[in-house]
Amino acid sequence: MWAMSDARPSIDAVTRSLLDSYRELPNLAHIDAGPLPTRVQVVELVELLRNLIFPGYFCPQPLSHASIASHAAGLLAEVRSRMEQLVGLALRFVARHKGDPDIDHTPRAQHITDAFMARLPELRRLLSLDVQAAYEGDPAAVHTDETIFCYPGIDAIFTYRVAHELHLMGVRLLPRMMTEQVHNDTGIDIHPGATIGESFFIDHGTGVVIGETTHIGNRCKLYQGVTLGAMSFPRDEEGRLIRGTKRHPTLEDGVTIYANATILGGTTIVGAGCIVGGSVFLTKSVPPGHYVTLKTQELRYRSAAMHDRLVIQPRSAEA
Amino acid sequence: MWAMSDARPSIDAVTRSLLDSYRELPNLAHIDAGPLPTRVQVVELVELLRNLIFPGYFCPQPLSHASIASHAAGLLAEVRSRMEQLVGLALRFVARHKGDPDIDHTPRAQHITDAFMARLPELRRLLSLDVQAAYEGDPAAVHTDETIFCYPGIDAIFTYRVAHELHLMGVRLLPRMMTEQVHNDTGIDIHPGATIGESFFIDHGTGVVIGETTHIGNRCKLYQGVTLGAMSFPRDEEGRLIRGTKRHPTLEDGVTIYANATILGGTTIVGAGCIVGGSVFLTKSVPPGHYVTLKTQELRYRSAAMHDRLVIQPRSAEA
Amino acid sequence: MWAMSDARPSIDAVTRSLLDSYRELPNLAHIDAGPLPTRVQVVELVELLRNLIFPGYFCPQPLSHASIASHAAGLLAEVRSRMEQLVGLALRFVARHKGDPDIDHTPRAQHITDAFMARLPELRRLLSLDVQAAYEGDPAAVHTDETIFCYPGIDAIFTYRVAHELHLMGVRLLPRMMTEQVHNDTGIDIHPGATIGESFFIDHGTGVVIGETTHIGNRCKLYQGVTLGAMSFPRDEEGRLIRGTKRHPTLEDGVTIYANATILGGTTIVGAGCIVGGSVFLTKSVPPGHYVTLKTQELRYRSAAMHDRLVIQPRSAEA
Repeated sequence: MWAMSDARPSIDAVTRSLLDSYRELPNLAHIDAGPLPTRVQVVELVELLRNLIFPGYFCPQPLSHASIASHAAGLLAEVRSRMEQLVGLALRFVARHKGDPDIDHTPRAQHITDAFMARLPELRRLLSLDVQAAYEGDPAAVHTDETIFCYPGIDAIFTYRVAHELHLMGVRLLPRMMTEQVHNDTGIDIHPGATIGESFFIDHGTGVVIGETTHIGNRCKLYQGVTLGAMSFPRDEEGRLIRGTKRHPTLEDGVTIYANATILGGTTIVGAGCIVGGSVFLTKSVPPGHYVTLKTQELRYRSAAMHDRLVIQPRSAEA
Repeated sequence: MWAMSDARPSIDAVTRSLLDSYRELPNLAHIDAGPLPTRVQVVELVELLRNLIFPGYFCPQPLSHASIASHAAGLLAEVRSRMEQLVGLALRFVARHKGDPDIDHTPRAQHITDAFMARLPELRRLLSLDVQAAYEGDPAAVHTDETIFCYPGIDAIFTYRVAHELHLMGVRLLPRMMTEQVHNDTGIDIHPGATIGESFFIDHGTGVVIGETTHIGNRCKLYQGVTLGAMSFPRDEEGRLIRGTKRHPTLEDGVTIYANATILGGTTIVGAGCIVGGSVFLTKSVPPGHYVTLKTQELRYRSAAMHDRLVIQPRSAEA
Repeated sequence: MWAMSDARPSIDAVTRSLLDSYRELPNLAHIDAGPLPTRVQVVELVELLRNLIFPGYFCPQPLSHASIASHAAGLLAEVRSRMEQLVGLALRFVARHKGDPDIDHTPRAQHITDAFMARLPELRRLLSLDVQAAYEGDPAAVHTDETIFCYPGIDAIFTYRVAHELHLMGVRLLPRMMTEQVHNDTGIDIHPGATIGESFFIDHGTGVVIGETTHIGNRCKLYQGVTLGAMSFPRDEEGRLIRGTKRHPTLEDGVTIYANATILGGTTIVGAGCIVGGSVFLTKSVPPGHYVTLKTQELRYRSAAMHDRLVIQPRSAEA
């Protein structure tokens, strides 16, 4: 089968076939199209922002009141310079895609970055309420610091709030790269276009999906596996997706959604103070103040005798 | 919209507003509060422990019987030194939070580290049974080595068993950082306080949540998306969460739980040898030896004709 | 409790007990058994392949038509050398496990690598269709480049297609390490043995499991949390798993499966053009052209008044 006597194909020959492929499939090649933000750059920017917003939690050297001013100024300068660059690359990328004339995006990137910087105290105020909600919402949390250190829900809402600011300022691509990065880390997928109120908490979080046009009020809480999704997508006469309509649900204030519940549709409204039980599948609105659960699921109980063989038998480790 | 002629805000001005925010929201700032374990340090310690417990699987240089003693001694010295340091930081952090007087935590950190070291052979015995359970539980596994190399379930149970030892020795924070790290990696969220017996296997695993007060017997097996969770949280008269009660279920020996099943509540006991089918939602106990499944779900079948337009149409890549 | 006066156990003593454990539990130790592919090496190879297949998207320096030939040739040489090495290690590892005589695996590793290289244009053609399917299947996608940059579904299908090629060429272990790595990143678990047609798209993706013997036709689409799994495992007379039978379902062309649906069993066939609704649990075949949904779930609506206390109350951040 392995004809060892054949001469190996040269790198040159393989390169030529690959270059043909690059030409034939231009939608998979980004050549002579200018620099792009890379994943690594996006990760580094988010890390710097995390240090700036939660000072002292993620850096190896302890911070003191004596040094905090120069520490913050240094970080800010670094963040500003990197954000300007990445926002500029994102603006340029989108403009080229639209076929806009090639202009210098630096001034607009600087304005956006400055506007973002001015929002940092408000971002911290929002995150402070989120951290408090995490602590108050989870009996396993021992103090708020623990939620900052290691709760994936805090990582996700932190990145979402940063990305959402940039999204509101008209930046595309970069916010999506940010939220997909934290989606990778936490399994929590929040589109930067979603609108999320104060004191938001996601516990455990793996598998949560919050779609682009979702509206979430204040003091809401989600558990792992919750989908706030679209029911079906409107299409134009030629069968193409119509983008940008409200496709995802609305949660009013004080809503709690337990694990693995699915809520679909742009006109579905879960009213204020509602609680939606685990594994509920909901495509209709619920009036305020209701507790919606699965009617006791019909389960079948049989003797597991015939399945005993399925149970793992202990064997010696040397086997 | 972008008034280009405005002077840009200075870094100084932004820094001042940020320092105000640091003062106003002290629960998001860790300043003059001493060093903390960082995520990177925790990841590195877990990596070293993985090398120590599974020698030869994760290091670029092959190990030989001639060199294994000096290799192990070197790794042990490194692990001991790093664990002492991180345990000390965690003890100090918790003591400060409790308002305890600032003492030298080094002696206790050393004792805990030594006690942990003495448990390494027992940890390896437990993990050896887990690896065997993974191999015997998955027909796609070709040999036990494959499960060590690449099964997320093994990564998760390894990290849990390490973290659980530290948790039992009274260390907080550090075990949580460990299990949240592997939660990030695998999508499997096991609280270090959970109690898990021998020969445990989680297949695929994404979305699994095992709460703090869960008890799991020997020879149990879980699939992806299984939640062993709390039903509701008891609160005191002032509406604050009461922490530390038994809130999560108990699985006796030889229980298998299939994908996306949810089992809730601190008094819910799944008896020995039970099998719980996929997507079952369970809040009541099941006597030993039963096979619990969804009664055939009521499904609706319609012609998909009107939905044909939803199906993706192939288009040429150049489109 | 902490007897501070005790002398600490020496590293030597701990090392001896660990070496005893290495001897007693050889299934957890890989000593004198030759080098193995490491996770880091596998990650690096996949990264290089990503750069080769999607040129210009993931590298910090922009590519130009003037430099693309030498860039591609350099990457190819690097990929070839690393893949040969890792394939060789994987072949050697499997041969030793089977007890085969210790031969030089280099020629076969080179042949496999050359065969893989020759498939690169075809891999790009398939991925081009997948990227187009992602763009056409998600109204939140603004252009195909965005799906290449940040869609976990594209990361997962890219890694699966690479791993599947190696799997078809008889390489074991290495493809599994690749797909488990992207499972870690994305929460999408596709076994390299699965067969997946053209124009495949997974949206969001966290929690998706596609088993080893799954067959998926052209133009299929899955959402987060979908399991294509096994129902039960056949065992031989001694209760051991029989490996290698068809255990996972078949999806014909043009099938869409919505979030958190579970489809089980090797004889379960979902017919062409079918749509399976969210949270459906299916263990029987569906004829072509059907839309299968949950019959309206029986839900219970109660006043949430008694649960009001469960809702998070806003507290000042200083509390």
